[in-house]
Amino acid sequence: MKKTSLFSYFALPVALVLSLMAPESAMAAGVSHELFTVNNTWMLVATFLVFIMHLGFAALESGLTRSKNTTNILFKNTAIVAIGLLTYALCGFNLMYPGDFNGWIGFAGLGLSLPAGDAGLIGYADGNYTYYTDFIFQAMFAATAATIVSGAVAERVKLSSFLVFSTVFVAIVYPIVGSWKWGGGWLDKMGFYDFAGSTLVHGVGGWGALACVIVLGPRLGKYENGQIRPILGHSMPLATVGVFLLWLGWFGFNGGSVLSADPGAVSLVFVTTSLAAAAGVIASMVTSWAVQKKPDLSMILNGSLAGLVGITAGSDTVSVTASIIIGLIAGVIVVFSVMFFDKMKIDDPVGALSVHLVCGIWGTLAVGIFSTNPDHKLWVQLVGVIAYGATSFAAAFAIFLALKGTMGVRVSEQEEMEGLDMHEHGIAAYNGFQTTNQ
Amino acid sequence: MKKTSLFSYFALPVALVLSLMAPESAMAAGVSHELFTVNNTWMLVATFLVFIMHLGFAALESGLTRSKNTTNILFKNTAIVAIGLLTYALCGFNLMYPGDFNGWIGFAGLGLSLPAGDAGLIGYADGNYTYYTDFIFQAMFAATAATIVSGAVAERVKLSSFLVFSTVFVAIVYPIVGSWKWGGGWLDKMGFYDFAGSTLVHGVGGWGALACVIVLGPRLGKYENGQIRPILGHSMPLATVGVFLLWLGWFGFNGGSVLSADPGAVSLVFVTTSLAAAAGVIASMVTSWAVQKKPDLSMILNGSLAGLVGITAGSDTVSVTASIIIGLIAGVIVVFSVMFFDKMKIDDPVGALSVHLVCGIWGTLAVGIFSTNPDHKLWVQLVGVIAYGATSFAAAFAIFLALKGTMGVRVSEQEEMEGLDMHEHGIAAYNGFQTTNQ
Amino acid sequence: MKKTSLFSYFALPVALVLSLMAPESAMAAGVSHELFTVNNTWMLVATFLVFIMHLGFAALESGLTRSKNTTNILFKNTAIVAIGLLTYALCGFNLMYPGDFNGWIGFAGLGLSLPAGDAGLIGYADGNYTYYTDFIFQAMFAATAATIVSGAVAERVKLSSFLVFSTVFVAIVYPIVGSWKWGGGWLDKMGFYDFAGSTLVHGVGGWGALACVIVLGPRLGKYENGQIRPILGHSMPLATVGVFLLWLGWFGFNGGSVLSADPGAVSLVFVTTSLAAAAGVIASMVTSWAVQKKPDLSMILNGSLAGLVGITAGSDTVSVTASIIIGLIAGVIVVFSVMFFDKMKIDDPVGALSVHLVCGIWGTLAVGIFSTNPDHKLWVQLVGVIAYGATSFAAAFAIFLALKGTMGVRVSEQEEMEGLDMHEHGIAAYNGFQTTNQ
Repeated sequence: MKKTSLFSYFALPVALVLSLMAPESAMAAGVSHELFTVNNTWMLVATFLVFIMHLGFAALESGLTRSKNTTNILFKNTAIVAIGLLTYALCGFNLMYPGDFNGWIGFAGLGLSLPAGDAGLIGYADGNYTYYTDFIFQAMFAATAATIVSGAVAERVKLSSFLVFSTVFVAIVYPIVGSWKWGGGWLDKMGFYDFAGSTLVHGVGGWGALACVIVLGPRLGKYENGQIRPILGHSMPLATVGVFLLWLGWFGFNGGSVLSADPGAVSLVFVTTSLAAAAGVIASMVTSWAVQKKPDLSMILNGSLAGLVGITAGSDTVSVTASIIIGLIAGVIVVFSVMFFDKMKIDDPVGALSVHLVCGIWGTLAVGIFSTNPDHKLWVQLVGVIAYGATSFAAAFAIFLALKGTMGVRVSEQEEMEGLDMHEHGIAAYNGFQTTNQ
Repeated sequence: MKKTSLFSYFALPVALVLSLMAPESAMAAGVSHELFTVNNTWMLVATFLVFIMHLGFAALESGLTRSKNTTNILFKNTAIVAIGLLTYALCGFNLMYPGDFNGWIGFAGLGLSLPAGDAGLIGYADGNYTYYTDFIFQAMFAATAATIVSGAVAERVKLSSFLVFSTVFVAIVYPIVGSWKWGGGWLDKMGFYDFAGSTLVHGVGGWGALACVIVLGPRLGKYENGQIRPILGHSMPLATVGVFLLWLGWFGFNGGSVLSADPGAVSLVFVTTSLAAAAGVIASMVTSWAVQKKPDLSMILNGSLAGLVGITAGSDTVSVTASIIIGLIAGVIVVFSVMFFDKMKIDDPVGALSVHLVCGIWGTLAVGIFSTNPDHKLWVQLVGVIAYGATSFAAAFAIFLALKGTMGVRVSEQEEMEGLDMHEHGIAAYNGFQTTNQ
Repeated sequence: MKKTSLFSYFALPVALVLSLMAPESAMAAGVSHELFTVNNTWMLVATFLVFIMHLGFAALESGLTRSKNTTNILFKNTAIVAIGLLTYALCGFNLMYPGDFNGWIGFAGLGLSLPAGDAGLIGYADGNYTYYTDFIFQAMFAATAATIVSGAVAERVKLSSFLVFSTVFVAIVYPIVGSWKWGGGWLDKMGFYDFAGSTLVHGVGGWGALACVIVLGPRLGKYENGQIRPILGHSMPLATVGVFLLWLGWFGFNGGSVLSADPGAVSLVFVTTSLAAAAGVIASMVTSWAVQKKPDLSMILNGSLAGLVGITAGSDTVSVTASIIIGLIAGVIVVFSVMFFDKMKIDDPVGALSVHLVCGIWGTLAVGIFSTNPDHKLWVQLVGVIAYGATSFAAAFAIFLALKGTMGVRVSEQEEMEGLDMHEHGIAAYNGFQTTNQ
């Protein structure tokens, strides 16, 4: 499929051309202009829902950490959205969807490039949505992988190094491994299934987070004299706002992954997504209440996310009952996983590893267990999990180690004690309140 | 209509079947596949809008109460969503929409059960949306009734008892009384009209709240020596975020109750809903400024909700002018109602009774006054109000009294003084701030 | 086009009539009922997205100011939505879209008035959406202009005077100047282009803000002994929530301005809007880091808004590359503009002038530079900028000066020192926290 460069379109009345060509080219692809318009509209609604997940991450991560590092977290999360969108336009989209390629790596060229011809312009993607819709929906996904890392390395990572890491991770690592499945690469051909990204997004981000956390080490004072010192988040309302916005965004994350407004598929995805999240809440509530003897708010918040990550890989292909089971198991897993990482002295301030990595693995394997499609096989799912895990972990480890050797990746002890906000940014997140330096 | 159990679908590629069958079965129901897809898409958009109301309630309720009880409120509101969704899947949906029944109570069986046949699968509900869309939209409604109770009993209710109460209320009471109107029961046959739930949702929740508050009693120190001591909310920004999110969600609550994307009806509902809310703000501002001599933020926040609850019953069937009048009257009512309940020593920390119960009654009666449909009669509306009031109040009273006699419903005096967050959950909502125990 | 008054529809079953007439009249206008329904649904989605911008403004403005004035800001922003919606129904809509008129000022009568005839009822507006959809989408826009003023005059303006100013500004000034372009007036005939309101909304609001700030003067202590004293915002999380919600809402602000769900146009607008915002973040980050030697969170937040305001005028008519350039330049401009206004001792607590006025001008002129439509000319854009600037500034200046001479526009020194919350509203925004009076 010949593509022409974005830059040659500079002087072209693109929107006008698109509009005029819409009816014919859409019908040429086998759907009516009306259906094309509904499908495209739903995909754009899903796009803005995925966008709001970035606010969800920003709120959750800052809520679960200390107020002296809040400005820093908000800064990182705002910058990542911008970096993600721009690099995805520059190279990510064309690395992830390179067209015909060897199955491992391919590149369709720098910049956005409208496919040539009427059908390409508007009847793109089997007549369900336009080229631009395809790009912007996928671009919103891209930045989430880097954001997952952000939470795990919070309260001690150096801003500049993190921004460089994120840029490379989202511009190159995420789209290349993504092409293996969603770009039609070798794992896709093998029959691996990951509907909306339990592995391609959450797993990749989670493995990246694990590598960075290992290179970075725990926060000062977190593990002392063989004790685990709890470091409390500064605002549970902010964390709760974050989780609800993430859940909201997931209706677009999973619902948009249908890639059309197909009524049966999208409504099934809404049901499985909602019930898995609800089951995650209940299971983590019961588990944490039984184990910790207290109903722990941060656990049920992470429980809902665990259920959501768990159902992401198979939300269109499992039954409603299975979605509840997947969510329940995810809700149990997340509680023990948080405790496990702490025992391992792997310091993850917001539980990102447990939610995104561990439940991402669970969700991907769950497709092999619960899918109603007999083509989905557990061993192939396992191959996918391992392939993504090894590559994402190794790539993140290499990048972050290189940064450690050059720019440094960790702030000074004094800065960590006094807070990144005043040192990196020169501004506190809260002014006018008496705060304590926990 | 024969239904097959959810559990028999475990191994069935549901989404696939749904997709393949979509065009034919939709057309069989008299609408084109395109129109079916638009209608279904709008209903799913309305679904996520109603979902976000749960964050609105969580933010509003925690903002209007003290910071020592914030974790508890956030926990309750998160748990209720999960409980509401799961119980509605288990039994609520089939209690509320039992099919042919005696008009008072019916049950179509445990679990979700796709109607048999092509038409049932996708052409369900007059060809406007799928079975799964129907379920998830209604499920999002269900939990709101219990959430209304949550705000009224805040700062003193025992967590475990409240969770048990909510579960029973949302799983059994709400759907059974709901079936009387929306399930085609006796009140529906009598001509009672409640478009989106001024009574079926807000009234039921409000009557439940009143019963619980009476059983529970006021917060310590609220009414002492014949004085009413104001207990200030801890965060007006949080409360404001809550109200705006509730208003946002109401576009789905009312707009989705059209049960299709019908352009004339949905756009009229958007206008009446918006203008009633705006009128509620202005009327409560003028009233509270005149009565209390201060422009009270919490009053205008509740004023907008008062307008929204007021217009809910008739938002599709009154004129634009009438919607403004309904909102204005609701805005006046809510101010005096808040003062009235305080005078009665009925302690409702967030004004839930005034907003949901009192303005729910007003909105339901307003249909009898302002409806453009001559079939809507004031006396029938009154019968509905009384029937729902008596049943919801009695049921909630009985359940909560039974809990009082067994588990107990109120925390200890010490716990109430020191805050539920540390006692029930062992974690403060805010850490790193100097707080005062108001 | 004959219109009948709203008030004569009091007893008419409007929704019913609309529903029954939908298919025929829509088709009469040349689009199928299906396409009409999709278009109308998208416009209503855009409507609720623009609505949520009001929460974005409330959060951003209160986050960037001191906690002693937070209740006041939240009150103003809630009241403005209500005032905007109601006055737009009363007169704004009919001033802005008067039908045939002299091109400078026209009025189609008080109240909403459904156009007569089938086509008018539902096939209104070229068959893309209903009369009510048209009204409510435009009504949500109206209040934003007044809200822009709110941020600039924060922390010192008298509540009652501000409410009167806003009412007049949104009810009369905004719609009359709006009619010059969007109502088909003289600037429209001259070929001026402003797709979604860089000038018609943000410029008008920004010029109004400048006039009010000049009349009002700076906050006490802001400019002392030739020094600029930074007055810090009280909550960066709240400000960040505000910016993300504004960005979210902009998908409806720009995306809805397509006035249909046209796939090519709406998806292009999503891409240009997103990339301009992202470019604004990056450019403001680099600029502020270079100039201020610190990565400044409030600068990148305003940088994203700068990009959004900048792309608003041409988001449907510039290439993707151009959208990035427009955003980058806006991100640079906003940093220097903030510094410039401070040097001029024009005190704008939230940077509203730099974001809305300066970048609004930039965005409007950028259409003349980057538009792919050769009919868009730079000099005409400049004429538009000057015409809107002169009129909006003069009108706001006159109204606010008249208020200064009568009601007074500024709170007392004591009130300003101690905070508007306790003096105007008698209630603090935060209770239970130890606060300092910065």
